[in-house]
Amino acid sequence: MDDKNILLMIPGPVPVHPGVYQAMSRPIYGHRTKEFRNLYEDSITMLKNICRTQNDMFIFSGSGTSAMDSAIANLVSKGDEVLNIMGGKFAERWVEITQTYGGKSIPLNVEWGRAVSPDELIAALEAHPEIKFITFTHNETSTGVLHPGEEIGKIAKEYDKLLLVDGITSVGGDYCETDKWGFDILVTGSQKCLGLPPGLGMIAVSQRAWEVIDKRSDTPSYYLNLKTYRESSKKFDTPYTPALPLFYAAREGFQLIVDEGYENRVKRHRLCAKATQEGMKQIGFELFADEQSASNTLTAVNYMDGLDDAAFRNTMLKHKVLIAGGQGKIKGKIFRVAHMNLCSEREVLLTLALTELTLKELGFDVRLETGVSAAQQVFS
Amino acid sequence: MDDKNILLMIPGPVPVHPGVYQAMSRPIYGHRTKEFRNLYEDSITMLKNICRTQNDMFIFSGSGTSAMDSAIANLVSKGDEVLNIMGGKFAERWVEITQTYGGKSIPLNVEWGRAVSPDELIAALEAHPEIKFITFTHNETSTGVLHPGEEIGKIAKEYDKLLLVDGITSVGGDYCETDKWGFDILVTGSQKCLGLPPGLGMIAVSQRAWEVIDKRSDTPSYYLNLKTYRESSKKFDTPYTPALPLFYAAREGFQLIVDEGYENRVKRHRLCAKATQEGMKQIGFELFADEQSASNTLTAVNYMDGLDDAAFRNTMLKHKVLIAGGQGKIKGKIFRVAHMNLCSEREVLLTLALTELTLKELGFDVRLETGVSAAQQVFS
Repeated sequence: MDDKNILLMIPGPVPVHPGVYQAMSRPIYGHRTKEFRNLYEDSITMLKNICRTQNDMFIFSGSGTSAMDSAIANLVSKGDEVLNIMGGKFAERWVEITQTYGGKSIPLNVEWGRAVSPDELIAALEAHPEIKFITFTHNETSTGVLHPGEEIGKIAKEYDKLLLVDGITSVGGDYCETDKWGFDILVTGSQKCLGLPPGLGMIAVSQRAWEVIDKRSDTPSYYLNLKTYRESSKKFDTPYTPALPLFYAAREGFQLIVDEGYENRVKRHRLCAKATQEGMKQIGFELFADEQSASNTLTAVNYMDGLDDAAFRNTMLKHKVLIAGGQGKIKGKIFRVAHMNLCSEREVLLTLALTELTLKELGFDVRLETGVSAAQQVFS
Repeated sequence: MDDKNILLMIPGPVPVHPGVYQAMSRPIYGHRTKEFRNLYEDSITMLKNICRTQNDMFIFSGSGTSAMDSAIANLVSKGDEVLNIMGGKFAERWVEITQTYGGKSIPLNVEWGRAVSPDELIAALEAHPEIKFITFTHNETSTGVLHPGEEIGKIAKEYDKLLLVDGITSVGGDYCETDKWGFDILVTGSQKCLGLPPGLGMIAVSQRAWEVIDKRSDTPSYYLNLKTYRESSKKFDTPYTPALPLFYAAREGFQLIVDEGYENRVKRHRLCAKATQEGMKQIGFELFADEQSASNTLTAVNYMDGLDDAAFRNTMLKHKVLIAGGQGKIKGKIFRVAHMNLCSEREVLLTLALTELTLKELGFDVRLETGVSAAQQVFS
């Protein structure tokens, strides 16, 4: 298989713009230089714009998980109660990290495929008045669900809890109003809707979060210590050698996002989501997620009876499109199509057309082009 | 200044082979695939060969410091006594990390510019029988000193201490016999003598180290948790999305190192060190490090009277060669020339020739080509 010529429709890594590849590959130069500091300053300015925040932001040389790790390690002390809003595999990661640092995880169980409701969140907060932090996965790619960031933010504010948000697959693709919605920590990663190669994690830290961080003297974190990053950032330095090619990529990639504009970008992602959803339904699939809380950056689709996960995805791959399977307890039961970053009419129509072809090849009775037509309808 | 056309003679990042740039820039493909697993397996096999070890090895998406952080966070429990062999800025990092995780740091102070002696190491171990771990910086680039890895390893074994070694600037450039010398943890990084872009940290973990790790249930580490890496590595997976372009670069770069051969590579680095040392001395400089413990991957040079740090390095940079200044308490007093990875006759002769030209331009009386001649002597 020619793995250099496959269309990635998986939820990260995603196809990267040729200009970003080009920027990434420039000859490496030293990082303790004014050239790097200028680049870092530019990048942070654009990143704050993209994340809709005036809070401090830092870029880690590490995956999105490194930024989640940093959030908990720097904020949550042993014994602190943390309400972890559940409902998918990435939500579980918040629980694991909370427990790693001795936090008392209180899971708010939400059925996979639907979003948390304000009422159940309020009930959980009422039942556990000692809760100090709330975590949630803004866009849960294991299930294709978008949780209501604005509503959760309002409730967190009302109950005076610190809100830690995994925006790894929402930032750059959907609305994510860090400041307006009151996210104390926003975490994101490079290889999703920001359209960069994997390897960078980003974090935004509110004043309220700093107050918690600054009260601690025993933070169990060195490489991902936020105080160290804050200190270095005063001169737009990173405390340790940054992954330079990825930083070169980031400036270019952020510029593309800023140039497109926040509203335009969200609109495009939402349109691709709608077209994918309509197309898949017309083909005869059911969607995994509740429609009113469906993600705009990833569509999770239930397999129809008799359609085998491996057979389906391998045939798609034979046609040079990589889609994702299910994870955790829904492995084998769903497939997932991401529509992130550069995704447009082209990629959606192609994926639907190949889905239909694949089904025909696997002996399913498919009306020709129904999914494609439905998507065309959405786009036109 | 054209920062895409500067010769890097700093101790990381270093010039990267064109073939490595090319490998890095290939279209990104998914990481939960057999293609990535094959690449990771190949890379680990070559890395073990380069590090002279049969121990488990892992590659982190993070800087070399991330791997140092992992070593201490996973091994050192609160209250454990750790002997930190000092003598430079990077040695201090071991102390900071030790203290971050509640280890009791016992610094063994060594004058900057010389290597630790077996006698002082033994004396420290005798004075503190509760010591459980020893840390040291194999090659200390802040001072240009190579510490005696083999001797330290022997003593650690004799006293039954676990030995944690920062080989970030020795591995790939000098002898570093992880298994033969009994390094329980070896840490290294991508952007020094391994000749890769920055952004990857590597760690080797001995059986003895695993025994300590496996006894713990409260390891304060998530992103850099070694047990998680061990589990994923069984299938040559990484637990979190890897920084793919850097992994693509790594396989290519490791192949270049394996192809050159361990002895050849060390010999070349040692020859470049010798030529740089002789050249600088002939020009009229004194070296900062004791000659018998001088590093083979970096030469630290004392400024002569009246030679200003900024003036010297800026003039060198005007001639398109970037060298490093001093760090910590010797900032402004020395400059540092790295000879790592691709460095050969070309780069050494050029750096010496430009050093002479710079001195002339700054009004120093330099005999033409004396440094260059001395280096030619070494090379011929």
